[in-house]
Amino acid sequence: MKQSIGKKPAIIPTPVLIIGTYDKNGKANSMTAAWGGVCSSDPLSISFSVQRTRHTHEALLEKKECTISIPLAAHVKEADYFGVSSGRDRDKFSDTGLTPVRAPSVHAPYVNEFPIVIECKISNVVDVGVHDLFIAEVVDVLIEDTWMSEDGKPDLQKAPFFFYNPLDRSYYKTGEFLMQGFSTSNLFK
Amino acid sequence: MKQSIGKKPAIIPTPVLIIGTYDKNGKANSMTAAWGGVCSSDPLSISFSVQRTRHTHEALLEKKECTISIPLAAHVKEADYFGVSSGRDRDKFSDTGLTPVRAPSVHAPYVNEFPIVIECKISNVVDVGVHDLFIAEVVDVLIEDTWMSEDGKPDLQKAPFFFYNPLDRSYYKTGEFLMQGFSTSNLFK
Repeated sequence: MKQSIGKKPAIIPTPVLIIGTYDKNGKANSMTAAWGGVCSSDPLSISFSVQRTRHTHEALLEKKECTISIPLAAHVKEADYFGVSSGRDRDKFSDTGLTPVRAPSVHAPYVNEFPIVIECKISNVVDVGVHDLFIAEVVDVLIEDTWMSEDGKPDLQKAPFFFYNPLDRSYYKTGEFLMQGFSTSNLFK
Repeated sequence: MKQSIGKKPAIIPTPVLIIGTYDKNGKANSMTAAWGGVCSSDPLSISFSVQRTRHTHEALLEKKECTISIPLAAHVKEADYFGVSSGRDRDKFSDTGLTPVRAPSVHAPYVNEFPIVIECKISNVVDVGVHDLFIAEVVDVLIEDTWMSEDGKPDLQKAPFFFYNPLDRSYYKTGEFLMQGFSTSNLFK
């Protein structure tokens, strides 16, 4: 039997996306977004939402370029801090001791300590309420070589990532391999 | 050191969203989408992408209402099948033995065996390439009472969910509790 709990953000899991931008003074900044994900396979694009009051919102509209870094569980505190503090009055990289690196293909910084970096150009901005939804076309993806196999492919099966559960506003670790996708075409017919 | 791997959908994790619709003949159908997530806090909205060739795309445009059910890991095979088969030539509920239930607040079916159901009305459709991005305002959320605590709140901390990793096209289990969110405001200053 199912019970109504009203309007709640009941998507489990949501990702922890670290949006990297340079602000109007050229300062590297990072903001955490859990409202986001892949939105198009071709052109390959990510969508993520940012409130209009955020320092990152201004930088995204001005520069039209950003990175999206994905942290491991070892950096959950830093990722949370990137979400609760503002680059308007803090230097989040200096505060946390993490390292901003200028991305090779876009004018935006990424977090050097995080294993996945997606370089993006903003292609559209959609008004969805208190947030603007940014559509960001993927330019390139960088992977820390610790997580690359010898044949030149990413091997992240055992990488300890984490996710956000917006129902209890908490972070959880990712777990073990379950099954290959696109493998059930003939299983139920 | 980071290595370029080109344009890849490198978001980990992505959710496994089961979009429930009635087609033009009134048949209950379900389609799996990994390109989606929360997109706005107010009005609370979910975004998800559906290719224009999909049977569900037609139903969404016609009915403008849907459910989003979230499965547990025990149903990973059924969830995968909902993604690789088409409601145009199959009855996916009949094939898998899962049960469609008419949602109380929208004209759309949900999957009875799945613990979370989000009832939605489509508020906008955005062309993002081969996919259309649907913006869906949340009308209500239903939780299976197995996962409700005695004080009437959802208690999903130990629920065995799963997610999709688009880099290796595989499913993984969710893991254990890591940390409360929004808890680091004063940690690094």
